[in-house]
Amino acid sequence: MAHDSTPASHSAPAGPGAGRRFELLTLGDELLLGLTPNSHLTWIGQQLGRHGVQLARNVTVTDEAAAISAEVRASWVRADVVITTGGLGPTCDDRTREAVAAVIGQRLVFDATIEKAIADRFARLGRQMTPNNLKQAYRFERGEVLPNAHGTAPGLWVEQDGRVLVMLPGPPNELQPLFTEQVLPRLARLGLISESEAYVQLRTVGVGESALETKLQPVFDRAGPALSVAYCAHPWHVDVRLSSPDGRLSRVELQAIADECAALLGEDFANYGHDSLARVVSDLFRAQDKTLGVAESCTGGLLANMFTDLCGASKFFRGAIVCYGNDAKMQILDVPESLIAQHGAVSAECAVALATSVAETLEADYGLAITGYAGPGGGTKDNPVGTIYLGLHSPQGVWSKKLHYAAARTTLKERAVIVALDWLRRELVRAARQISTPPRRTTLIG
Amino acid sequence: MAHDSTPASHSAPAGPGAGRRFELLTLGDELLLGLTPNSHLTWIGQQLGRHGVQLARNVTVTDEAAAISAEVRASWVRADVVITTGGLGPTCDDRTREAVAAVIGQRLVFDATIEKAIADRFARLGRQMTPNNLKQAYRFERGEVLPNAHGTAPGLWVEQDGRVLVMLPGPPNELQPLFTEQVLPRLARLGLISESEAYVQLRTVGVGESALETKLQPVFDRAGPALSVAYCAHPWHVDVRLSSPDGRLSRVELQAIADECAALLGEDFANYGHDSLARVVSDLFRAQDKTLGVAESCTGGLLANMFTDLCGASKFFRGAIVCYGNDAKMQILDVPESLIAQHGAVSAECAVALATSVAETLEADYGLAITGYAGPGGGTKDNPVGTIYLGLHSPQGVWSKKLHYAAARTTLKERAVIVALDWLRRELVRAARQISTPPRRTTLIG
Repeated sequence: MAHDSTPASHSAPAGPGAGRRFELLTLGDELLLGLTPNSHLTWIGQQLGRHGVQLARNVTVTDEAAAISAEVRASWVRADVVITTGGLGPTCDDRTREAVAAVIGQRLVFDATIEKAIADRFARLGRQMTPNNLKQAYRFERGEVLPNAHGTAPGLWVEQDGRVLVMLPGPPNELQPLFTEQVLPRLARLGLISESEAYVQLRTVGVGESALETKLQPVFDRAGPALSVAYCAHPWHVDVRLSSPDGRLSRVELQAIADECAALLGEDFANYGHDSLARVVSDLFRAQDKTLGVAESCTGGLLANMFTDLCGASKFFRGAIVCYGNDAKMQILDVPESLIAQHGAVSAECAVALATSVAETLEADYGLAITGYAGPGGGTKDNPVGTIYLGLHSPQGVWSKKLHYAAARTTLKERAVIVALDWLRRELVRAARQISTPPRRTTLIG
Repeated sequence: MAHDSTPASHSAPAGPGAGRRFELLTLGDELLLGLTPNSHLTWIGQQLGRHGVQLARNVTVTDEAAAISAEVRASWVRADVVITTGGLGPTCDDRTREAVAAVIGQRLVFDATIEKAIADRFARLGRQMTPNNLKQAYRFERGEVLPNAHGTAPGLWVEQDGRVLVMLPGPPNELQPLFTEQVLPRLARLGLISESEAYVQLRTVGVGESALETKLQPVFDRAGPALSVAYCAHPWHVDVRLSSPDGRLSRVELQAIADECAALLGEDFANYGHDSLARVVSDLFRAQDKTLGVAESCTGGLLANMFTDLCGASKFFRGAIVCYGNDAKMQILDVPESLIAQHGAVSAECAVALATSVAETLEADYGLAITGYAGPGGGTKDNPVGTIYLGLHSPQGVWSKKLHYAAARTTLKERAVIVALDWLRRELVRAARQISTPPRRTTLIG
């Protein structure tokens, strides 16, 4: 969906990892047949990016030994770090390890420690170890083993001729902890990536990339050429990444510049780092000890689903009424039939009634309502398909907001939810300010 | 999540596309930085798979001209069809087209028809055309233009030395219609892919791959060696793909074999083709003119969100109560406080009460409830984290079902929803059978 939102600029890393070439080989027919998205590219690309390295290339091939060895050979001659995913499991092509060993000019050796780890794992699960599992007990002669706490195939690590080869198991729940706990620290120790996050990231919402640039450029000009700035535009927000590739600016100095930007941006600044907007809103609710109830018509549960994906949601999220039909709006949330008859279910009036009623019904401090025409059917002359009303009931009052997007059904749902989340975020930030900043008169007396 | 669910076997295509090598180049820093998933690989891989071709290789590189031309050169010498995505827009590297033209030994020519299409598009949107848009008006000298109805950059098509090069714009809403409406028919006309779907697919739920194979192998043995069978295991279902690579079995014969499999599998057969389980259930509800209300506790709106992603959901889906807290269960759905005190909110008793009450509250024929401990907190000795109860109220009665999975929060939610959907599907299929098949006695009299 977001292929059109390309980052505007990238800082060429000059610190650790500068000029180093990282290539990723993702192995598996299921990726080429479109049965499984290539989540390893996305996840590993993000992880390396945070540590100052942009992946140079990703190749996906079948998990046949011949294809793998051709790709490893091509990458091995020109990359500093080659990472492979998949192709290591008991049902994978038997010759994968041999083929790679031949490319790097090593022999495979049987490792009794790996065998024991596999056998222990089977014993712990109370299952019988089949003989094909034993091929996972081979490692490269002059290489190391990266133990896999969540599966049978360990990762394999080779440092050779100034290059690194890392082979990782395919299942994400095995690969991800192995990568963060073992691969990243080893790469950092070799100076191939930054030890810590390579940049300070400001996440902004509701302001376009060029407007952002106009606003922030004076700050960046004052910081001088040691600062590198990259903008990453996502569908609904823009990230600003501040780094100092040659290390002339310390982390503290980068953070000070970021703080200056945040102050300038005011409410358009959402958070530092990588948290989602749903997470930011969830943290604000929990910090303020306030609760939320939601009425979703056209978004049909999407907002509730986002909140309940987060651990600890029950601390603030009282629940949602997915009032998809008008009957549900009237019966469960007591929206008067006459209101719907006069203004329609897609109206500011209905949004406000739903927001207030859902807060009351669920005994929540805040009530948020979303009602609209997601299409392709429905809509009126005044409120065509793509029209969405949001209603927000808070301890401070109750308001509505009208949106209109020309987009497909699922995209419309996403946009409405992001705008709703951003509205909640802004209200909670304002509410916190009112609580923490005493009224001016009091200050004068004090 | 599903990298461990690799397809068990693949039929090597012997019909159109047999032995032809297809390679895909996906261009864009946003893919390598993990800002955007590589959805083109997944989508194009699926489309080609349906037409009998397995993509041999996918390479993702930055959209710099040098990187692109190196990859196109490498693919062009060994592949029969090379498809590129991205790198064609007005903000992309100016030299992308030139670099590719150099590789295939062609010149670029300015095409006034493309210029006019771009200008018309800007006029239609009431916007000013910036000069950088004009670089999109170049095509290969001995090549064709694939008009883009949804954006400014058209696709480019070249047939040369028995090979095909297709360059497609990056935004999925532009690429996808262009691919299905123009690229697939052209490839079929050249005999590079099957004209129609290359296989008949049976989608099965609730039965493992090896059990499936045991059950179906006798049918396949009778069909003989002209039949090719491939199993594709997904996280929650297994697809069986029947094809006849050499064309000895007609589509009608393949369908007859598939029908025999479906009859053998009974309720474990869900549908032909590629529809999701939510779509299958939605179609059953609509065909039987029945309605559904949902009470979601631990799945927090995921099921409602899936239904409301489908057009026409309002025809059967009355809504959902996301009763995340116990208060919501008691206040909105009238679950007695004493029931929760005695049995707990995660219990068969509560699931049944929620299912019945949500059907009544939303005036629906069917009521479905999901309540469980999604973790990481919560749980009791008898019902630890990962325990989920489903409740189903139907015109035939009311039942509960207990599940337990050791998985992360979001995976648990997904599994619970899939099991719930499958339960609805089976109940609706049974209900339809009772309606359409008259009781035996009646038949005897007739």
